[in-house]
Amino acid sequence: MRGNILGERFIVLSFGESHGRCVGVVVDGCPAGLRLGEEDVQRELDLRKPSSSLISTERREEDRVEILSGVFEGYTTGAPICMLAWNKDVRSEDYERIRYTPRPSHADYYAYVKYRGFNDYRGGGRFSGRVTAGFVMAGAIAKKLLREVLGVEVVGYSLEIGGIRAENVSLEKAREYRYRNDVRAPDPGSAERMRNAITEARGRGDSVGGIVECVAAGVPTGLGEPVFDCLDSDLAKALLSIPGARGVEFGAGFRAARMLGSQHNDPFAVRDGKVVLEKNDAGGIVGGISTGASIVVRVAFKPPSSIRVEQKTVDLRSMREVGLRVPGRHDPCIVPRAVPVVEAMTAIVLADHAIRAGLIPPVLGEKGLRS
Amino acid sequence: MRGNILGERFIVLSFGESHGRCVGVVVDGCPAGLRLGEEDVQRELDLRKPSSSLISTERREEDRVEILSGVFEGYTTGAPICMLAWNKDVRSEDYERIRYTPRPSHADYYAYVKYRGFNDYRGGGRFSGRVTAGFVMAGAIAKKLLREVLGVEVVGYSLEIGGIRAENVSLEKAREYRYRNDVRAPDPGSAERMRNAITEARGRGDSVGGIVECVAAGVPTGLGEPVFDCLDSDLAKALLSIPGARGVEFGAGFRAARMLGSQHNDPFAVRDGKVVLEKNDAGGIVGGISTGASIVVRVAFKPPSSIRVEQKTVDLRSMREVGLRVPGRHDPCIVPRAVPVVEAMTAIVLADHAIRAGLIPPVLGEKGLRS
Amino acid sequence: MRGNILGERFIVLSFGESHGRCVGVVVDGCPAGLRLGEEDVQRELDLRKPSSSLISTERREEDRVEILSGVFEGYTTGAPICMLAWNKDVRSEDYERIRYTPRPSHADYYAYVKYRGFNDYRGGGRFSGRVTAGFVMAGAIAKKLLREVLGVEVVGYSLEIGGIRAENVSLEKAREYRYRNDVRAPDPGSAERMRNAITEARGRGDSVGGIVECVAAGVPTGLGEPVFDCLDSDLAKALLSIPGARGVEFGAGFRAARMLGSQHNDPFAVRDGKVVLEKNDAGGIVGGISTGASIVVRVAFKPPSSIRVEQKTVDLRSMREVGLRVPGRHDPCIVPRAVPVVEAMTAIVLADHAIRAGLIPPVLGEKGLRS
Amino acid sequence: MRGNILGERFIVLSFGESHGRCVGVVVDGCPAGLRLGEEDVQRELDLRKPSSSLISTERREEDRVEILSGVFEGYTTGAPICMLAWNKDVRSEDYERIRYTPRPSHADYYAYVKYRGFNDYRGGGRFSGRVTAGFVMAGAIAKKLLREVLGVEVVGYSLEIGGIRAENVSLEKAREYRYRNDVRAPDPGSAERMRNAITEARGRGDSVGGIVECVAAGVPTGLGEPVFDCLDSDLAKALLSIPGARGVEFGAGFRAARMLGSQHNDPFAVRDGKVVLEKNDAGGIVGGISTGASIVVRVAFKPPSSIRVEQKTVDLRSMREVGLRVPGRHDPCIVPRAVPVVEAMTAIVLADHAIRAGLIPPVLGEKGLRS
Repeated sequence: MRGNILGERFIVLSFGESHGRCVGVVVDGCPAGLRLGEEDVQRELDLRKPSSSLISTERREEDRVEILSGVFEGYTTGAPICMLAWNKDVRSEDYERIRYTPRPSHADYYAYVKYRGFNDYRGGGRFSGRVTAGFVMAGAIAKKLLREVLGVEVVGYSLEIGGIRAENVSLEKAREYRYRNDVRAPDPGSAERMRNAITEARGRGDSVGGIVECVAAGVPTGLGEPVFDCLDSDLAKALLSIPGARGVEFGAGFRAARMLGSQHNDPFAVRDGKVVLEKNDAGGIVGGISTGASIVVRVAFKPPSSIRVEQKTVDLRSMREVGLRVPGRHDPCIVPRAVPVVEAMTAIVLADHAIRAGLIPPVLGEKGLRS
Repeated sequence: MRGNILGERFIVLSFGESHGRCVGVVVDGCPAGLRLGEEDVQRELDLRKPSSSLISTERREEDRVEILSGVFEGYTTGAPICMLAWNKDVRSEDYERIRYTPRPSHADYYAYVKYRGFNDYRGGGRFSGRVTAGFVMAGAIAKKLLREVLGVEVVGYSLEIGGIRAENVSLEKAREYRYRNDVRAPDPGSAERMRNAITEARGRGDSVGGIVECVAAGVPTGLGEPVFDCLDSDLAKALLSIPGARGVEFGAGFRAARMLGSQHNDPFAVRDGKVVLEKNDAGGIVGGISTGASIVVRVAFKPPSSIRVEQKTVDLRSMREVGLRVPGRHDPCIVPRAVPVVEAMTAIVLADHAIRAGLIPPVLGEKGLRS
Repeated sequence: MRGNILGERFIVLSFGESHGRCVGVVVDGCPAGLRLGEEDVQRELDLRKPSSSLISTERREEDRVEILSGVFEGYTTGAPICMLAWNKDVRSEDYERIRYTPRPSHADYYAYVKYRGFNDYRGGGRFSGRVTAGFVMAGAIAKKLLREVLGVEVVGYSLEIGGIRAENVSLEKAREYRYRNDVRAPDPGSAERMRNAITEARGRGDSVGGIVECVAAGVPTGLGEPVFDCLDSDLAKALLSIPGARGVEFGAGFRAARMLGSQHNDPFAVRDGKVVLEKNDAGGIVGGISTGASIVVRVAFKPPSSIRVEQKTVDLRSMREVGLRVPGRHDPCIVPRAVPVVEAMTAIVLADHAIRAGLIPPVLGEKGLRS
Repeated sequence: MRGNILGERFIVLSFGESHGRCVGVVVDGCPAGLRLGEEDVQRELDLRKPSSSLISTERREEDRVEILSGVFEGYTTGAPICMLAWNKDVRSEDYERIRYTPRPSHADYYAYVKYRGFNDYRGGGRFSGRVTAGFVMAGAIAKKLLREVLGVEVVGYSLEIGGIRAENVSLEKAREYRYRNDVRAPDPGSAERMRNAITEARGRGDSVGGIVECVAAGVPTGLGEPVFDCLDSDLAKALLSIPGARGVEFGAGFRAARMLGSQHNDPFAVRDGKVVLEKNDAGGIVGGISTGASIVVRVAFKPPSSIRVEQKTVDLRSMREVGLRVPGRHDPCIVPRAVPVVEAMTAIVLADHAIRAGLIPPVLGEKGLRS
């Protein structure tokens, strides 16, 4: 109960279930005066769709967003923006069985215990990756705000899939290439190898994990409200809300644990009369505040738990151990589809903090008496 | 502004500065009826003290906690509990210089920009590790609540320091040994090697990072409120508020990114008529909800940024690049002192969620008319 | 921006505009296991409809609620419940004029200034009484929770309309009669006189105000979380969110200001071995906590601002003073339709506090494996 | 549990008990760069002191504020400001008796039930008017912010005491005179009569109630965040947190219930090319948003419940009805001392909303490298 609201000023409320009537979101706190149409949101939502049948689930949702409130004559009004996509391609019969034989490492069983059986178990219900469609809708607004008001750009890509690490490419290349390939790799060579890793696992009825890296460029200095609402704290919270996320790190991250201070510290320098950093092992955040350098965050995703390989579970009716081959249509790797979701959550947190810091005003521009 | 409050039901407000009059905390939402004395808090606070002069700062704070409110006749009353420790061993003159030549990878410069010079820069002010004394005070109450009401125990230790990884020991051994050695290692062999890594770095005027692992045993199934207030999300947020933390992972964590689903999934089994897990790669949290298995979280800490090795910074008065050897008294490794802080933050989040889930009631027991 | 969320544990997010696509609400925090169907909500919503064309607006909205999420197999699941009613009988052309000549004592002009013209002005947009349809939807759930879990009943009625004060009748009579007459009076005699007062004002193109009294019976002792989240504080906040509300008082209320302590104090007595109150001038709340006696709250409503009597306003284009006869379809008295809204807001706050106090658990009963 | 935090952006956490070690407050969210010394707070705190022994309690607290954090070199830093006053003139023995024989219309008994005896009952504990010393400390900062950044002035006075209504004087006169007389009347004539009403009641061992009126002049248009965080909603919530408050109204308030729309509506006019209001029956708030006219709010206070007149209560040990003459030192009328508290709460809410609306920035001015 009550944990479906994120943010302080750019507030996101998620609702909807995998096999219910819809998935959706309400954004409260979006400034008035942002030009916004359904096409702005649809564009982002399309990036989250299964990229190709080879490496993704066969469930095909149109995912057409409808904006129900908060936009008038093409502009946000300052009122809550309710958006949703109706569920269509639902086959709930596949899920009847998991009611009694919970899928290992899925939320099925724990939701069953927590809600004493009242939860909507079909397709994972609230625990389905499908709820992230709502995250992406909210993220689309956040991204637009960040881009138009602050010039901030948020770029994610698959850094690693099935043990295959992407090459080190420039942010420009990554931005250009990532959505041109179905695994969302930042470069063509890795894309090919990652795709192979996925299809190989899929062939065996298995699944693979990976890492999404997300870079936010152009973030002004000073976002973040320590000591608790640090920018990294809030990013980590938001990113770990994505189903399947198991860890988050910033800049050098876990590698920093093995560095010396003299290696890890980012020296200050002066360029064109301004204080700059000579490198960015901090990942753009120091002391919980943005430094002005690019924010670099990585999220580790586990391999999806729905696999056709036989696993051991328990039949809750008989309380006997039984074998299970998970039925239904599933992604053999969640990483490619997680990329736009990671971008969305990153943008949501940055927009929230930019508003908190007073860098995005309550109203953008002036409409006045124009109709 | 406004980011110093953590939690929904067990609420922690941090206040105080490194070189101000005190550091402290207010806890709002602690159930009435918990037996609590200053000694309960002091015991935890003592674990955060510099463990030995060889591996820690030479600043010597007595850190004696005073409880100013919320406790009456030895029990919590349900009212806010204000606790603080007065600052005593303060040498602010050391910090005059960093006002103009910010320390690389410290918050000095970013705080200066964000607060336009109004922040208390002495000793890092609000960005100092010293504020974590308040975290530990609040954590002491959370730990007591968890232990006495739910039988939950929270055990942290240094898993890795300066690249030295601790041995794999049982939780019992770790709990017993960790506070008997000054580096908070879970076993004697690693303790020795970790201590050497620290003293060696210190000898060179440098610093080392490391990883704290924290295990919460006995956590009931069902804590966490997805989709946003997931247990892992809230733990990550709280843990990344600790100065120097750069990453957080649960269970297999980043390693999960390289596993197959068939390897990573934790099979269900039946033991004594109950559903149990055969292994715990999930780290006790699935779908944002506690599974009943031990919660296992790891926090990566960077090497402290205050080093005597010369670094490059900028003199803000002349806007010229200058060399800096950080003056003052500093920890060459923050990991040992971070151990009780990681425990505290973990306990705070668990207590908050246990109250949210209704597992810790608003009042413990009954005092009635007794005086 | 960002003020559309009410509550701490039973959380209500309002969305939608008077002449937009819909009005709606999301409830986050409703316990799992409450039997709930659209008919439960529809019943309450029907009470808010214009009661008769003589005394109400001629806008005729079907106001058919749809539950989009959070309910599965007839029970709440613990997930957010999104509900809405599509707008149908919309005549926006009536409102074109008020864009330039704001209606006195309406929010038009202030919304125009605050949102710099971006607000949806049609029909008052977010400031329309129409948004209270969403309040009533959320209130329907709160009332059901209160009734089924705690046996609490919330009964409102028109205490005064156009200066006509209702007779002093028993709660039973008021409950029985209030929704049987179109002015929501608690007794037949007053109903007649109140109706006359409304039709008379309407005949002159004018409007009248009044007072809604709301009684919550069966509220357990101990709801309310002082010092700030007092039960009366939170009720007042919620009730003043109803468009047109100008004041709130509890028990003796403003009359208490003229009483002596010896008159106002409610003596304790013993009945059947229990502590009871001999009278209830406190209105069921003392020190911000419910006393166990009935909660009695009164809300003063101003006369609706939309009148056909000519008023003075300003043409914002020419900045000249002009006369205005408000076009469109309006209620000559808001009080009758405010009655179910006052009940809804009262129930929402009580449910929120009952959950906070642990008196309504996170899950009601046990569904288990039943389908 | 957990209800001691008020506000969204200018956040006030209250702590401390009447007979504990101290009463205090933490303000989180005060912008950096406000010049602030203890004398600024002390000045306000002094206004809350018992004004004269004839009409007030004989408890004499020095109420000397100490600022423990958040201020550096004479300016706020943006960090939480912890302030407190140590309790000194405490006579707890007076309260031993009320543990068993609760005072009618006091919170004693309800707190006893809610906290099952764990609450600090001495002097009312958390329910004592003494906690409002903390409110005034926070209010002192809010007032300074409002005055220095926005030119807003908040002026309260006793509008009515014991049935004696103050004369209609100008705001200038009220501001000048109210703190020059011990009943805080806005004019000399009423002051005399009000004082008589109090002393007469006191002479009989009784108490009287009254009404505080508070005017905030210079408030910019557009404060308030409908639909729930309306300016009047939030003011009412804050004001009803003051012990003894029983009702709140704005502008015409309850009187509006008896007006016609054509009487109540405030016509727009043009003066010097600006839109203004010809009268202010709305009390400065329409649709939950400030109109730019003065905010006018009235708070009804009950007569204090502690009276020497014998009352009926219950001995909780024997569960027998007994007579009670309340011992201890009490105010025969709370209204005069409530005046600065009403001002404080009003200022706190206005400051909170001014920050939310972006009208008070996160940092005031620029300190830069100056020491």
